Amino acid sequence: MLFHRVAIVGIGLIGSSLARVLKHNRLAETVVVYDKNPEYGKKAVEIGVADENVGSAAAAAAGADLVILSTPVGAYGEISKEIMPVLKKGTIITDVGSVKKYAIAEIEKHIPADSGIVYIPGHPVAGTEKSGPEAGFLELFEGRWCILTPGKFATSAALEKISEMWRAAKMKIDTMTPEHHDKVMAAVSHLPHLIAFSIVGTVADLEGYEQQEIIKYSASGFRDFTRIAGSDPTMWRDILLNNKETILELIQRFVEDLIALERNIRWDEGDKLFELFSRTQKIRKEVIEAKQDQPEIEKKILAEINRE
Amino acid sequence: MLFHRVAIVGIGLIGSSLARVLKHNRLAETVVVYDKNPEYGKKAVEIGVADENVGSAAAAAAGADLVILSTPVGAYGEISKEIMPVLKKGTIITDVGSVKKYAIAEIEKHIPADSGIVYIPGHPVAGTEKSGPEAGFLELFEGRWCILTPGKFATSAALEKISEMWRAAKMKIDTMTPEHHDKVMAAVSHLPHLIAFSIVGTVADLEGYEQQEIIKYSASGFRDFTRIAGSDPTMWRDILLNNKETILELIQRFVEDLIALERNIRWDEGDKLFELFSRTQKIRKEVIEAKQDQPEIEKKILAEINRE
Repeated sequence: MLFHRVAIVGIGLIGSSLARVLKHNRLAETVVVYDKNPEYGKKAVEIGVADENVGSAAAAAAGADLVILSTPVGAYGEISKEIMPVLKKGTIITDVGSVKKYAIAEIEKHIPADSGIVYIPGHPVAGTEKSGPEAGFLELFEGRWCILTPGKFATSAALEKISEMWRAAKMKIDTMTPEHHDKVMAAVSHLPHLIAFSIVGTVADLEGYEQQEIIKYSASGFRDFTRIAGSDPTMWRDILLNNKETILELIQRFVEDLIALERNIRWDEGDKLFELFSRTQKIRKEVIEAKQDQPEIEKKILAEINRE
Repeated sequence: MLFHRVAIVGIGLIGSSLARVLKHNRLAETVVVYDKNPEYGKKAVEIGVADENVGSAAAAAAGADLVILSTPVGAYGEISKEIMPVLKKGTIITDVGSVKKYAIAEIEKHIPADSGIVYIPGHPVAGTEKSGPEAGFLELFEGRWCILTPGKFATSAALEKISEMWRAAKMKIDTMTPEHHDKVMAAVSHLPHLIAFSIVGTVADLEGYEQQEIIKYSASGFRDFTRIAGSDPTMWRDILLNNKETILELIQRFVEDLIALERNIRWDEGDKLFELFSRTQKIRKEVIEAKQDQPEIEKKILAEINRE
């Protein structure tokens, strides 16, 4: 087996989906979990995605040869501080955080020099807006990219083991620097989420509108934003505060472009609208051609999203 | 049968889906189509969703007891002017336009007083981002709302017939004033589309980014915006220019809220982010509870969206 004892700290959507991958592919003899919400840990054992549920991150990490941090990134520092003293030489730590520079800084500052502890920072680029251990499912990662950003505590043997784990989840692997990761994710993920949160807030606050009507007709566009804006509040607070500079710059760029568009509408510049909308339609085609919106996988994911 | 001869002017996504409903439910003896793109009309007959393809809107409308306008709304005025002389007394006109005040003004100005021509303005609130007769499908309207805004050229008999047609498409019917329709749609549909077009443009224009990387990792949020921003350019140009006042007001509101959010990020006000994201998560739950995001229907629609 790839691992003997895997500790998963934080057993939400990503943690529990990865636990399912570990069990399904027999990659670990034992999967032990800790979540600060005791119900989550209990539930994970109950539904069979984990073998043991323990009362602290340190208890989970003790004796593990792999520790996976899958809490919101804001908790990484505290957890790392707690688990380092109990880790044995050669233990691999990995994480699934959506911001890498901050995540790495929070974890690495607690790794003692010459401890022999290995760290492979990771980010499986996959998800739904659901949270909790029951929201997870085996196919979540299928066909998506997993970005690894190995740094000064990495070894090539550990990088290969972590890659093998994600390949078992049917992910494609990419490696890059944490800086580059954070820049790309700011554009393709952080800004879109921020805009979705913002517009759902704006529309929900409009006075002179019946809120029931907004919900009733939401299928005409608003609904798709609510799906994104239904994502975990703690996770997104942590992401946005910890990739701040790039995000603030992108907001400015976005507002500039939006105001130009507003001006096109005000002055009846239909040709400029048409030109922009034709360009965005072309980008949509590129996304489909790159198989980043695939019917079979999407159907599975959508079925899971809507499973109530 | 509900109708003898139905003329559909504009045989794109909505027109061809409605044609499928008419044929499938045997609501019309003959469905005749005209599209300014001659390939669309030919294709509609070829795939069996229409019986006849003719060379002009007037040729389609001649002898029809129902004329459906399903082109972009910017073309309604010209088409109405062309077809009115050939319509017989009692003919019902309906449309599917996403802005109602403008659509009604463009059509009604060409209806001669005392002509006996009846007009029931309509808006089936359904769609995908695809265009053309082959993009249509029978289930497009299922479970969605159809808004009718009957005015001075309506009769209750015609209102009932048009309602029956949309009920056959499995839509739920609502009636309201055109003003109210345009205000609600500005919030739930026009603003979200505008924002999606805008952000896809912004991200695509970012210098210092590899466009291939943007596409590659698009599944992490950006992709969902490209889906909306892949909608028909002509249709959306016409909508945004013809519901201008409400839309400009909403853009202002949105920018205000976004800048407040930007400030929260800059000043590390995590509690305010958390509060907003918790509210948007609650709204997401309301959308699901209102069954505006249903697994079975969505799966069908998604399969169609991704059908290449």
